Amino acid sequence: MKDVVNVGIVGFGTVGSGTARILLEQKSLLRKRTSTSVNLKWICDKDITSDRGFQVPEGILTTDIDQLMDDPELDILVELIGGIEPAKTFILQAIEKGKHVVTANKALLATHGFEIFEAASKKGVEVGFEASVGGGIPCIKALKEGLVANNVSTVLGIMNGTANYILTRMTMEGLAFDHVLKQAQELGYAEADPTYDVEGIDTAHKLAIMSTLAFGQRIGLDDIYTEGISKITPLDISFATELGYSIKLLAIGKKNSHESVDVRIHPTMIPKDHLLSQVNGAFNAVYFVGDSVGKVMLYGMGAGQMPTGSAIVADIVDIARDITRGCTGRVPALSQPFDSIGPPRIKPVESICCKYYFRFTVMDKPGVLSRISGILGEEEISINSVVQKGRASKASSVPIVMLTHEAQEGRVKKALKEIDSQDFILDETMIIRIEDMKALEES
Amino acid sequence: MKDVVNVGIVGFGTVGSGTARILLEQKSLLRKRTSTSVNLKWICDKDITSDRGFQVPEGILTTDIDQLMDDPELDILVELIGGIEPAKTFILQAIEKGKHVVTANKALLATHGFEIFEAASKKGVEVGFEASVGGGIPCIKALKEGLVANNVSTVLGIMNGTANYILTRMTMEGLAFDHVLKQAQELGYAEADPTYDVEGIDTAHKLAIMSTLAFGQRIGLDDIYTEGISKITPLDISFATELGYSIKLLAIGKKNSHESVDVRIHPTMIPKDHLLSQVNGAFNAVYFVGDSVGKVMLYGMGAGQMPTGSAIVADIVDIARDITRGCTGRVPALSQPFDSIGPPRIKPVESICCKYYFRFTVMDKPGVLSRISGILGEEEISINSVVQKGRASKASSVPIVMLTHEAQEGRVKKALKEIDSQDFILDETMIIRIEDMKALEES
Repeated sequence: MKDVVNVGIVGFGTVGSGTARILLEQKSLLRKRTSTSVNLKWICDKDITSDRGFQVPEGILTTDIDQLMDDPELDILVELIGGIEPAKTFILQAIEKGKHVVTANKALLATHGFEIFEAASKKGVEVGFEASVGGGIPCIKALKEGLVANNVSTVLGIMNGTANYILTRMTMEGLAFDHVLKQAQELGYAEADPTYDVEGIDTAHKLAIMSTLAFGQRIGLDDIYTEGISKITPLDISFATELGYSIKLLAIGKKNSHESVDVRIHPTMIPKDHLLSQVNGAFNAVYFVGDSVGKVMLYGMGAGQMPTGSAIVADIVDIARDITRGCTGRVPALSQPFDSIGPPRIKPVESICCKYYFRFTVMDKPGVLSRISGILGEEEISINSVVQKGRASKASSVPIVMLTHEAQEGRVKKALKEIDSQDFILDETMIIRIEDMKALEES
Repeated sequence: MKDVVNVGIVGFGTVGSGTARILLEQKSLLRKRTSTSVNLKWICDKDITSDRGFQVPEGILTTDIDQLMDDPELDILVELIGGIEPAKTFILQAIEKGKHVVTANKALLATHGFEIFEAASKKGVEVGFEASVGGGIPCIKALKEGLVANNVSTVLGIMNGTANYILTRMTMEGLAFDHVLKQAQELGYAEADPTYDVEGIDTAHKLAIMSTLAFGQRIGLDDIYTEGISKITPLDISFATELGYSIKLLAIGKKNSHESVDVRIHPTMIPKDHLLSQVNGAFNAVYFVGDSVGKVMLYGMGAGQMPTGSAIVADIVDIARDITRGCTGRVPALSQPFDSIGPPRIKPVESICCKYYFRFTVMDKPGVLSRISGILGEEEISINSVVQKGRASKASSVPIVMLTHEAQEGRVKKALKEIDSQDFILDETMIIRIEDMKALEES
């Protein structure tokens, strides 16, 4: 039995450092738990001189990826550089050389995952990607192994810590989006270019991975309707709070009875007493509905050096166990054989039905409410409640907020196009979808 | 490679039926996911004639356990009869015959787990027990595999659905304990003898298992301070709500820096905005703190036919994968080698420190508050706030509620003994421990 498993990390940034620290500092713990020695043999990065705050053993740092690729003793390549290239090339090269791969690279998996999984499957090597969704939360293992007995019909979640941090502070402190974003950037919680996080793209990468696993269809980025949080105002949050909701950037994956799937990401109003409403700050949550298990939620840090490192090392240990026991490929990368994963059958967003929050910005004059409700009525959108408040004395516009009963997205878009062309409308109408969660939680 | 794994279920009750249904109805799903045929070969029960609501293939029902024990083709025995005997004998017998075991039997594992794990370890067979804690929630897999890179310092949770259901209804509807219990019994949510559930014993079984896994010490039932919910009144719940807390039967396992562990179960006041406060009804939650991952919570149905069946089948699939790939024992039953699990080092409950809620039932006369606070002061228990309300016109007693700052349990007990011996005290003082969760959530 092989009793040392050699690991090489490519990408010595935040997550790479966290992973290296765990492998070095918890070596004896890991040995006790796995009866195997997991040995950090290489760390490769363009920058191998900056201080990462801990001691790296001599001789393992290199700037030359070929030292890893050409090392026949290297068992597992851990790709932590992120982005598409050169990550993709490195991973495919490692697979070609018969090395197992662990990656946290959701962007790469969401766009080129199948190519990677197919190559790995042909070579008989494993690809671990627990850290690609939900940071330290063991949600991929839960889905693939813990819930293996279930047809999973729903994958939901708050999967981006930056967006959730911003929404949480906007809610708790009544602050504007731009203001919180700027502070988050200063604190290092948000990237200089925050587009991926706040516009839902990072969440879409994760939903593509999770819904592919859960539903057995090749769901890609283009299949997912994606809308971010940058248009949410403190006014919307205060109305939502008043109406008993919180606003979350929710990833929704729902398989319908006829196997078509509804995959979308958008700011969503969730009842305040729902568990997902209580997921605040940089925390993430992933929520499944299975036909046997019912509802299951996993909660934890969705990013960060050590939480993500925890997930990476869990993958390394899983593969190390398989290597030393001679059973690599024991759990396939996907939930089912690669070639049985079908093409996506996507429900167009226009055909979804949910309740809506509209905030109209109107001139304060007679007849406006009647005209709006008339147009909505023509599209069979029925109004559940209206909140109109007295305008501030000097304001020329007032907000009117409406909650609808269940309506069809296509008709809503049509009605709002018509409404927004009226001369009493002073600004684009804000729409937020409301999920009471009951339909999503049905198995 | 062995391509059929044969399973025998002993105990065709609620969970046995759920497990059998999943194995029969999801056979092709399981085959697709595992590349193995998991075959339900035997179901053994004293009663094999009652209708369980689904079709059982001919020839697999038996009343004779020896048919399973003596079947050389039987790979996995699934013990679902519960209780100590004959479950223990059956499990040890199966292990002796080289069969793997899956069980949901927390009472057995909490009391005789080591004997079973030791026997299995000697024989080189696996023991799966995911369903013994948290029903369908994959919490044992999360702890042993997903968080393998972590020193886990805290295991917390709401681990009994019946007790949580009762507390939730008492909270939502202001009902008395006895009233809700009776309804729960009528609805089948509580046993005819509810002692295990409402007095915390079932929770103690689960905490014994989880804290043994998490802390690497042999923690047994006797090590765990256990207090149930039967004394909680609607008055306490209404005070707690008013003060910003909910009351939960919380299982607490905390390893201190000097490796001593604090393991206890009691009604606990938790801040209303903490995630665990939102775990309502029959749901369970298990909450870990690891040194790399930070806080992780898993939530789901803690009992029930199909959720528990989901966890049993996950264990069966895990073992089936190991059998077919020839790597049984890949993940040890415990988190570390059997013989490295040390004896328990328990922190006595008298030495814990937390905040307290006291509800005194006193005669409404001058000087009472001063006398009470005097006695508390002598034990260095300092009062954070006092709530005293006008008495109902005809009542001879009034409740006084006090919240303390952090105090030591031993001193609290001493002070209350003194207070309860005063002639103005009309009923035993109610104590509820308050956890603001911050100390418990430190890693």
